[in-house]
Amino acid sequence: MGLPRVLTIDFLHRAYRLGTLTPLDVVDVVIERLESWPDPAVWISRFPADELRAAARALMAAGGPSDDRPLWGIPFAVKDNIDCAGLETTAACPAFAYRPAADSTVVARLRAAGAIPVGKTNLDQFATGLNGTRSPYGAPRSVFSADHISGGSSSGSAVAVGAGLVAFSLGTDTAGSGRVPAAFNNLVGVKPTKGMLSTAGLVPACRSLDCISVFAATAGEADLVRRIAAAPDAADAYSRAAPDVLLPTAGLRVGVPVGAEREFHGDTANEALYERAIAALAGFGCSIVEIDYAPLREAANLLYNGPWVAERLAAVEDFHAAHADRMDPTVRKIVEGAVGVSAVAAFRGHYELEAYRQKAKAIFAAVDILLLPTTPLFPTVAEMLADPIGLNAKLGRYTNFVNLLDFAGIAVPAGFRPDGLPWGVTLIGPAFSDAALAVWGDRLHKALGEGLGIERAADLAAAPAPTGPKVDSVEVAVVGAHLSGMPLNHQLTQPGGTLVKRCRTTRDYRLFALPGTVPPKPGLIHQPGFEGPGLEVEVWSLPVAAFGQFVSAIPGPLCIGKLLLDDGSAVSGFLCEAHAVQGAPEITQLGGWRAYCAGA
Amino acid sequence: MGLPRVLTIDFLHRAYRLGTLTPLDVVDVVIERLESWPDPAVWISRFPADELRAAARALMAAGGPSDDRPLWGIPFAVKDNIDCAGLETTAACPAFAYRPAADSTVVARLRAAGAIPVGKTNLDQFATGLNGTRSPYGAPRSVFSADHISGGSSSGSAVAVGAGLVAFSLGTDTAGSGRVPAAFNNLVGVKPTKGMLSTAGLVPACRSLDCISVFAATAGEADLVRRIAAAPDAADAYSRAAPDVLLPTAGLRVGVPVGAEREFHGDTANEALYERAIAALAGFGCSIVEIDYAPLREAANLLYNGPWVAERLAAVEDFHAAHADRMDPTVRKIVEGAVGVSAVAAFRGHYELEAYRQKAKAIFAAVDILLLPTTPLFPTVAEMLADPIGLNAKLGRYTNFVNLLDFAGIAVPAGFRPDGLPWGVTLIGPAFSDAALAVWGDRLHKALGEGLGIERAADLAAAPAPTGPKVDSVEVAVVGAHLSGMPLNHQLTQPGGTLVKRCRTTRDYRLFALPGTVPPKPGLIHQPGFEGPGLEVEVWSLPVAAFGQFVSAIPGPLCIGKLLLDDGSAVSGFLCEAHAVQGAPEITQLGGWRAYCAGA
Repeated sequence: MGLPRVLTIDFLHRAYRLGTLTPLDVVDVVIERLESWPDPAVWISRFPADELRAAARALMAAGGPSDDRPLWGIPFAVKDNIDCAGLETTAACPAFAYRPAADSTVVARLRAAGAIPVGKTNLDQFATGLNGTRSPYGAPRSVFSADHISGGSSSGSAVAVGAGLVAFSLGTDTAGSGRVPAAFNNLVGVKPTKGMLSTAGLVPACRSLDCISVFAATAGEADLVRRIAAAPDAADAYSRAAPDVLLPTAGLRVGVPVGAEREFHGDTANEALYERAIAALAGFGCSIVEIDYAPLREAANLLYNGPWVAERLAAVEDFHAAHADRMDPTVRKIVEGAVGVSAVAAFRGHYELEAYRQKAKAIFAAVDILLLPTTPLFPTVAEMLADPIGLNAKLGRYTNFVNLLDFAGIAVPAGFRPDGLPWGVTLIGPAFSDAALAVWGDRLHKALGEGLGIERAADLAAAPAPTGPKVDSVEVAVVGAHLSGMPLNHQLTQPGGTLVKRCRTTRDYRLFALPGTVPPKPGLIHQPGFEGPGLEVEVWSLPVAAFGQFVSAIPGPLCIGKLLLDDGSAVSGFLCEAHAVQGAPEITQLGGWRAYCAGA
Repeated sequence: MGLPRVLTIDFLHRAYRLGTLTPLDVVDVVIERLESWPDPAVWISRFPADELRAAARALMAAGGPSDDRPLWGIPFAVKDNIDCAGLETTAACPAFAYRPAADSTVVARLRAAGAIPVGKTNLDQFATGLNGTRSPYGAPRSVFSADHISGGSSSGSAVAVGAGLVAFSLGTDTAGSGRVPAAFNNLVGVKPTKGMLSTAGLVPACRSLDCISVFAATAGEADLVRRIAAAPDAADAYSRAAPDVLLPTAGLRVGVPVGAEREFHGDTANEALYERAIAALAGFGCSIVEIDYAPLREAANLLYNGPWVAERLAAVEDFHAAHADRMDPTVRKIVEGAVGVSAVAAFRGHYELEAYRQKAKAIFAAVDILLLPTTPLFPTVAEMLADPIGLNAKLGRYTNFVNLLDFAGIAVPAGFRPDGLPWGVTLIGPAFSDAALAVWGDRLHKALGEGLGIERAADLAAAPAPTGPKVDSVEVAVVGAHLSGMPLNHQLTQPGGTLVKRCRTTRDYRLFALPGTVPPKPGLIHQPGFEGPGLEVEVWSLPVAAFGQFVSAIPGPLCIGKLLLDDGSAVSGFLCEAHAVQGAPEITQLGGWRAYCAGA
C-alpha cells in the first residue's frame, strides 16, 4: 500500500489496524524519502537505516497499537537541541556537541508511546533565531521554495514534517521558534504552556521561557502529541501542571490588533490572508475585538533588548568562555550582549515584565484569545543573510511576547499567497488553555487551509479534530430554549459546554407549550405507560461547576431530574412540575420543541 | 467609658454602636497613651494631636460605622516605609526621607474604610533585618521586656499594637518582618499571599517578594484588615487576585520538620512551646506529618546569599550611589553585597529557586499546611548588637523561605515562656489560602495563647473568629433523606456544605412517602391553591461544583426545581415527578419527613 505524500498519525494507525501496512513498511518508505529529499540542510544526524528497521521490528514483536502506545509505529524527528539517546546533541554547534547518556524526558515519553525517532534536525544555533539560516549545517528551505527560508529556530523539524519525511516532530519555542516555521511549511505548530512539557534534556536558550513544541500537519495530531508528551517532571525545575482551562465553544471573543498595529512591512499578500482569517472567525460567530497591541509589542522587546539575553549566556557560559570563536557570529554577538549586564538590571527587567503582565491581564479581561499573524513576512534566504538581526526581529513581532507573558499558542496554516507560498496565523490563549485552543485552531485551519504540508491537494477536511479539554463534566439533556440555535443556548456554550448527541426520550414523555414564558419554553412530563413519538433532546456536556450554576439559575416550574433516552441511557435533564402544564397546549405529537417553533 | 489595655476593633465597634464611646474619645485616649508609652523608639513621626482629633470629628460628622466603613473610628499605625499622605516616608533613613504626594494604595483603602492613621513606625532601615536594632531612630523593645528586641523589621508597628497604642498596624514582610515581631509582642501577624495587597506606595526591599502585612491582637481582626486592604491594583506590577483556596475544616494534615531540623540553638523554652503547639493541633484531630525541611532551609538561604540582594540595591541604587555613608552600616554592608553581581547569576538564582519550588510542591502533596516556630530565639538588644548579621540569620530560619516560595503565612502567639516572655508559631499554607489559614490560626491561638498583646489577662477566648474563605456557593432545600441526622446527610457535609436555616415551604406543597425507595424518601409536589401546613425543609449551602455533582447524582423520580419558602424566598430544592406519587401514602398533614420517620 502506498503512503500519502505527507504522513499523518491518523493514516498510519488506520493502515496498521487494517493490516495494510506495518511499521517496517513505513520505515522503509521513510528511509527512501530521507535519502531522496533534495535539501541537505534538514538533518544534523540520523539513525542508520538498519537501526530504524530494527526499531520497527522490535515494536512489531511487542504487539500492535494500543491505548498504552498511542504513537505505535509513528516516525518522528527531534530538534537537535533535545537529547535523544544514540545520537549526539549539537545545538547546531559542532564544537559544543555531546553524546547524551539518556533521552530527554519528552523523547522518552514518545518512545514509550511507541513512536520511532528518526534523527536530529537542524536549527538556528542554540535556538537563537527565527529564520533557520544561523547554522553551520546549512539553511533549510521552505518545502515550497528553494529560495525561501524554512523559518527557525526549529527549521529542520518543520521541513521534516512538511516534506512528509516524518509524521510529527519536536521543536522548541522561546521566542516563536515553534510557530514561525509552521507558517512557512503549511503546518500546525503547538507552543504548549510553559512547564507542561518537561525541558529536562534540552539545551537551554532561555531556561525560564523555553518550551518544547510540536509540529504536525493538523491541530488534532499536534495536540495529541502534546498530550502524550506532557507530564509533571521533577527533573525540570519549571515543570508544572494544572487542570485544562476552558474557552467558550461559541461566542468566542477574539482580540486582534487595532489597524495601526497591524504591521506587514508592505507584504499585502500576508495582510490579505490575515484579514481573511479574522473574517473566518467572525463567520463562526466569534466577536472580533480590537485591542491595544502596544503593551504586547513592548513586552516582546524585552526578549532581546532586556536582560533575558543573560539566560542565553548562562546556558553556554563555559563553552562561550572557551570557544566563542566557534560560535555562529550572529549568535555570538547576541549572546555577548549579556556580558556585563548586572543582577540589578535583571530584576528591573522582571519588574517591567510584571507591569506588562498587568496590561496583558486587562486585555484578556475583554477577550478570550488573540488571533495574530504568525509572522509579518516570508523572506528569502538572501534577504535574511543581508540583514540577519534586523529582519529576524521583524519575524518575531507577533511571537516574542508569548512565552514572557505565559501564554499558550497554536500556529495554524491560513492559506496560500498568490505566489504559491503558504502563510499562517496564531491563536494565543491563557496558560493551560492548550486543549481548548487546539479545538479553535483546528476549526480555523480547516476554514482557511489547503492540504497538509507540501501536499496542497490532501484532504484536510477529513483530518480528526482535537479531542478538546478534559474537564470534570456532567451531561444534561435539554428540550426547549437551550437547544442549539435557540435563545438560551448560550447558557451552555459560554461556560464551555459541548454538544454530545441529539436523540429522543423514550416514548412515555409528553411535551407542552408553557403559556406566558419568555423566551417561550416547553414543559416535559414523564408519564409511564404513555405511548408517544418520543421527544427530541440534545445532550450537552457541561463542566460540573457550570452545571451547578446552571441548575441554580433555572426558574420554576422547570426542574432538573433524570430523563430516560431511547438509547437506554438515563441522563440529567429538564422536566416540568405537573401543575404548570394544566391547560397548556400539548405538542407531543410534533416530536419536539424545534418542530413546534418551526410551525409557530 | 474606659478603654481596655489593648485595643481591638471588636471592642471599639461595640462601644461605638452602644454609644458609650466616640472616635474622639478613643483618639483622646490614644494621644495620652502615645505620650506616656516609655519606649521612645516606636515612632518615627506622628500626626499632631489636633489633626487626630480633627480626623475623628470628620468621621463622626459623616455618619457612623457601616458596611461601607468597616473600620470606622479605628486608630492604626503605618510602618514608615509605606506612604501615608501628611507624613514623611523615611524607611528609617533620614537622608532618604521624602514627603509622599498621596497615600499608598493600602493606606488609602483603610482610610476609606474609616480607619484613622496615627503615625509612622520605626523599622530596620529599608526593611532590611528581622530584629529592630538597625535604625537611627533607636531600637524598639518588646512590650514585655526593656532588654529584649521587638523583632523587626516591622518593629514599631508590632509594639504599637502590643502596647495598646493602636488597634492594628501595617508592617511589611519580605523575609519574615511581619511575623517575627508578632512572636515577640504576643500578637498575630498576617503575611498575605504576595500580590494580594498592593505594594504601590511602598519603598521596596525586594520588589518581587515584598508583602504589606498586618498586626493585630487576634487572627479575626488581622484577617479582617487583610480583606479590607486587599484589592487588585494596576499600580502594583505584582498585583494579583484569585479565589480563596480552601483548607480542610477537619482532618488537616500538618507538616512539621523532622526532629533533626528543629533548631532552637539551645532555647529549650521555645522548643517546649513548639512541641505544645504541635500537640494542640494533634488534639484537634489534625494529622502531624514529619517533613524533610532541608529544601525549605536551603531555599531560605537564597534570600541573602543569592542574587535577591540585588533587589535591595535596585530599590535604593541612586541613593546608595550618592549617600552610602548615610546608611546604617549593617544595612549598607548587606546592600553592597549586590554590587558586581551579574544578570547571569540572577537568572541562575531563579533556576535554583524553581528547583526548590518543585521540592516544596512535593512537600505540599503530603500536607495541607506547615506549622513552624516563628523564630528559634528571643535575643536581647545587647546580644543582637554583638552579632548583627549572624544572629539575624538565625532569627529568619523559619521565615526566609516563605515569600520566595509563594506561600501565605500567619504568625500566632503560642503562649509564654517561664521567664514571662511571649513566643509564637507560624502556620504556612499555599498562595491564596489566607482566609482558611486564619481560621486555623485562630483556633490554635485560642488553644495556646494568653491575653492580647501586653495584657496577659485579657479575654482571648471571646475574640471573634475569622469569617473564613469565601466560596461560590449555592443554596439547596432538602426535605427527606438529606436532612440533618438522616442517612444521606453526609452528601451535604462531606463536600463542605453548611446548614443555613430550617424553615417551611409555603402551604401549597404536598408530601408523599415514596414506596420502595432505599433509604426511604419522600416526594414533594407543588400544587398551587392547596392549603396544607407547609412542609419542613432545611436549606444547605454547597460549593457550586459540589452542588453540580450532587444534582447529577440524584436518581429519578426526584428532581431539583425551585421551592417557595414561607419566608417569601425561592430556593433550589427537591421535588418529585407527579407520576411517582400516584397511590403513594400522603403525609402532608404530619408537616414533614422527620415527623413521619419519628412515627414510622
